[in-house]
Amino acid sequence: MWMETESKAEGVRRGRASVALRALNGLRLCTGDMEVMDTYMQDRFYVVQLVMWGLRGVSRVILANNPLSGALIMAALCWESCWKALLGALGLLASTLTAVVMGQDSGEVSGGFHGFNGMLVSLLMGQLSSAGDWYWWLLLPACMGSASSVFLYSALSSVFKRWDLPVSVFPFNTVIMLYLLCTGPDNPYFPHHTAMPPGAPEPNGTKLIAIEVIRGIPLGVGQIYTCGALGPSLLILAAVLLYSPLLTVHALLGSAVGTLAGLSVAVNHHFLYSGLSGFNGSLGCMAVGGLFFTFSWRIHLLSIASAFLSAYADIALGNLLGTVGLPASSWASTLLSTLMLLLTGSLATYRIPTGQVMAPEHNLCSHSQWEAGNPAATDIQL
Amino acid sequence: MWMETESKAEGVRRGRASVALRALNGLRLCTGDMEVMDTYMQDRFYVVQLVMWGLRGVSRVILANNPLSGALIMAALCWESCWKALLGALGLLASTLTAVVMGQDSGEVSGGFHGFNGMLVSLLMGQLSSAGDWYWWLLLPACMGSASSVFLYSALSSVFKRWDLPVSVFPFNTVIMLYLLCTGPDNPYFPHHTAMPPGAPEPNGTKLIAIEVIRGIPLGVGQIYTCGALGPSLLILAAVLLYSPLLTVHALLGSAVGTLAGLSVAVNHHFLYSGLSGFNGSLGCMAVGGLFFTFSWRIHLLSIASAFLSAYADIALGNLLGTVGLPASSWASTLLSTLMLLLTGSLATYRIPTGQVMAPEHNLCSHSQWEAGNPAATDIQL
Amino acid sequence: MWMETESKAEGVRRGRASVALRALNGLRLCTGDMEVMDTYMQDRFYVVQLVMWGLRGVSRVILANNPLSGALIMAALCWESCWKALLGALGLLASTLTAVVMGQDSGEVSGGFHGFNGMLVSLLMGQLSSAGDWYWWLLLPACMGSASSVFLYSALSSVFKRWDLPVSVFPFNTVIMLYLLCTGPDNPYFPHHTAMPPGAPEPNGTKLIAIEVIRGIPLGVGQIYTCGALGPSLLILAAVLLYSPLLTVHALLGSAVGTLAGLSVAVNHHFLYSGLSGFNGSLGCMAVGGLFFTFSWRIHLLSIASAFLSAYADIALGNLLGTVGLPASSWASTLLSTLMLLLTGSLATYRIPTGQVMAPEHNLCSHSQWEAGNPAATDIQL
Repeated sequence: MWMETESKAEGVRRGRASVALRALNGLRLCTGDMEVMDTYMQDRFYVVQLVMWGLRGVSRVILANNPLSGALIMAALCWESCWKALLGALGLLASTLTAVVMGQDSGEVSGGFHGFNGMLVSLLMGQLSSAGDWYWWLLLPACMGSASSVFLYSALSSVFKRWDLPVSVFPFNTVIMLYLLCTGPDNPYFPHHTAMPPGAPEPNGTKLIAIEVIRGIPLGVGQIYTCGALGPSLLILAAVLLYSPLLTVHALLGSAVGTLAGLSVAVNHHFLYSGLSGFNGSLGCMAVGGLFFTFSWRIHLLSIASAFLSAYADIALGNLLGTVGLPASSWASTLLSTLMLLLTGSLATYRIPTGQVMAPEHNLCSHSQWEAGNPAATDIQL
Repeated sequence: MWMETESKAEGVRRGRASVALRALNGLRLCTGDMEVMDTYMQDRFYVVQLVMWGLRGVSRVILANNPLSGALIMAALCWESCWKALLGALGLLASTLTAVVMGQDSGEVSGGFHGFNGMLVSLLMGQLSSAGDWYWWLLLPACMGSASSVFLYSALSSVFKRWDLPVSVFPFNTVIMLYLLCTGPDNPYFPHHTAMPPGAPEPNGTKLIAIEVIRGIPLGVGQIYTCGALGPSLLILAAVLLYSPLLTVHALLGSAVGTLAGLSVAVNHHFLYSGLSGFNGSLGCMAVGGLFFTFSWRIHLLSIASAFLSAYADIALGNLLGTVGLPASSWASTLLSTLMLLLTGSLATYRIPTGQVMAPEHNLCSHSQWEAGNPAATDIQL
Repeated sequence: MWMETESKAEGVRRGRASVALRALNGLRLCTGDMEVMDTYMQDRFYVVQLVMWGLRGVSRVILANNPLSGALIMAALCWESCWKALLGALGLLASTLTAVVMGQDSGEVSGGFHGFNGMLVSLLMGQLSSAGDWYWWLLLPACMGSASSVFLYSALSSVFKRWDLPVSVFPFNTVIMLYLLCTGPDNPYFPHHTAMPPGAPEPNGTKLIAIEVIRGIPLGVGQIYTCGALGPSLLILAAVLLYSPLLTVHALLGSAVGTLAGLSVAVNHHFLYSGLSGFNGSLGCMAVGGLFFTFSWRIHLLSIASAFLSAYADIALGNLLGTVGLPASSWASTLLSTLMLLLTGSLATYRIPTGQVMAPEHNLCSHSQWEAGNPAATDIQL
């Protein structure tokens, strides 16, 4: 009887352990780059593959590469506004299909590299349009702009590969700027809001509300997808957490640094409350802290420096472009990340070649394996 | 008698055939790149050679390379205004001689590569000057500006040759922008008109006149040489036709696409009527459709895409530069053509190396010969 | 007795000759690049070495490389204003230490390459600040800006080394522009003056004073260090003279050319009197005339052309950036010098590889030795 009970308890324990193990295994499969998905997808229908490429593209915007993260982010966009989610999906589809038709490298297409620029172009067009939601004519420039970003991506990659640099969101930034310049604020077909420079003066007597500033930090991560509400922003953070905890920490850290930078030069309060002050810092911090460099304490400090520089550069560019009514979008973080990747000296030894960039945890793991296994590898070679 | 008549008729027919053959041969010698001219010119007087280099330079502006086309275009400029033709000729001479003095590559000098940027600089200075025609002081900056373009051409070619890109009209665009910025609109010595941005609002109640818009399409080709009259524009089109019919078709197609793009974002009517909306589209379409790429249906579609992108980028840059009173000149088409030449993927296989670019018909012919002869060539190599 | 007198006179003569020889030897050691100093410094205290690197950095701003010149220039800055000298020294220290911490190439650090950009950033921040001298809060952005310039220097060198180009003062120009844009004119913490464009209209009835214009020529050299007084400017010129007489001649020549260019497009009188019209021409002339090219009459003419182009480009950029209240700082001369170094054709044969650039007199000497010794060298090789 006792033995029976024992064996039952044993069985329950074993069962629990096995469930925990399965859950852990499942989680392991769902986190990081989900490379297993690529193998699984190889012989599926084209449409299913296209959805998978699209979802990877969605997550690429925030430097992740995980279809589940992408699905979560699409859910966050739907939560914020279905019109926005529709525009994003259309941009993804338009740019991915353009890349297929143009005969771009299939690895890039399936990795979602062409999709994410197109998605951002469409999202920003919707965000900045002053014609309101569900203005169907906007789908036309959204499609065309997204498709144009593929041309830019392809051409810039020719130039950038000489220095092993990623093209990043340069195409998005260029296309959205040209679109806004092309239509102008009072266009009869495609009107849009003019951007307020971050240095715009405050009405007298307004005081800074600390809680709103702190609320701006998670909003800064949401602003990467033009999300201005707290709920969707947190869901986007959860999506990044699924890909990599280290990246999430840097996303929040960068956003906080950006807010600090904004405070130090007394930017407009709206800029702090809405999270616009944080999102460039966030992107700058994520790119350096773990993604393109193997994580270490030196790189952690570099990522903070990168966040500060991105944030200040964003304020500067925002003031400059604001004189002609344009937003600075993510020029600052894109330029600063590129700059950091070009650094010479002893910091360059931490750099991970662009082709081998994966989730920070994976990078860290393979780096320590490589360091540990180096003598063995040498032995084998001998 | 009958036989005699027959033999006479035969003789006449033979004579006619021989005349036709000679005419055809003559025509063949006059069209395309006229390489035979280079051999013929080798031991002539220096001044005659200089004229030949200049005429090649004139045609280079519109992407042709034919001294007869150049002569026709100079005639068109004279027809429009003799002062303009004088300025153009002076710019050609100043830049070509500067290139000779600076010891630039003789192949580039004799191909007219240095002349065409200088010519454009001078032409635009005359066009934008508000001091009226025959303002002799203008010859001073025209000479200096044209000479400066050679420095830029030489330096940029060092950078661009890494990607096998042509320098194109980057020097012209830079020099004319700096000149306009340097003198400013109210300069006591060299005043000039401020440019109207394409998005400038229309006075109320003006309706679009369809016939004027259609008239703007051939004018768009003329605007490449700052020609705003229909007659000279048609003569310039004829000059292009002499070089290559395929290029002419793309010139008109691109201009039409540019006008369409202008209509789609509701630009100022003057911009459509004067052909200013068409000329960047025209240049963008010509560069891709046949010149730098071997012609095929895919490339034809790419050339239309290039025309659209050039036209939209021109409107965008026009609005941006218009805020400081500058014209967008041909920045858009120059940037877009360069972008198209950098494209990766399967479209890049159609690309013709910069050193081997000739008339589209010649490219097409040599490509099919090469394709047909490829197995044979392989045999020989084996 | 006579012999005694004679031998005494002989002794005196010998003594004098020996003094003269020693003085000459001492002078030879103090002029040029003072390479002997590097050997002498190798085993000194770190702080002494740091001071030496800093002084080399100070002289690098004006394209010299001599610690004594650096010391003289620091004295000139102190003469002008001690606050300015303090800011300059702080900038030097902040950027040099940042470079050390970031593990930059030690040869670059000890050559003062990182220091001179940081020094210029700090100096300009002080010059443009409207909060008055001894505003201690300014030290914070001065330190941060100077440190940022190291990131830019390091990253740009990755790009520029492909064409064997020096990074020059691109980092300074970028950082100071971003700082000014970031803070804006009415910032509550860091206010600054808005720059007046050179084309700003003159009040009616003001006549040009010739003597003031001529006084602006040496002031143009002082303006490289933001010095607006004649005494310190002459001391700076003396510092350059210590490094190289040829460079001094080109500095004054370039400043004169710049003033001439300013007169030719009727710039604001203040721009001529203060030396602001001359300093870009001066830098452009110095870079080409002797430093990066082996001196010859052709290069002398090129240096004059470079001075003219730099001066005109400076006026153009000043007018452009003046529309948003920014100064053109030394963008023009930096861009033009880079352009000149990229020139192709027969002028490129005079180019000295960046790594071998030394004082013009040394370049000239080693070039003639090399030319004379070339056959011998060939013999040895055989």
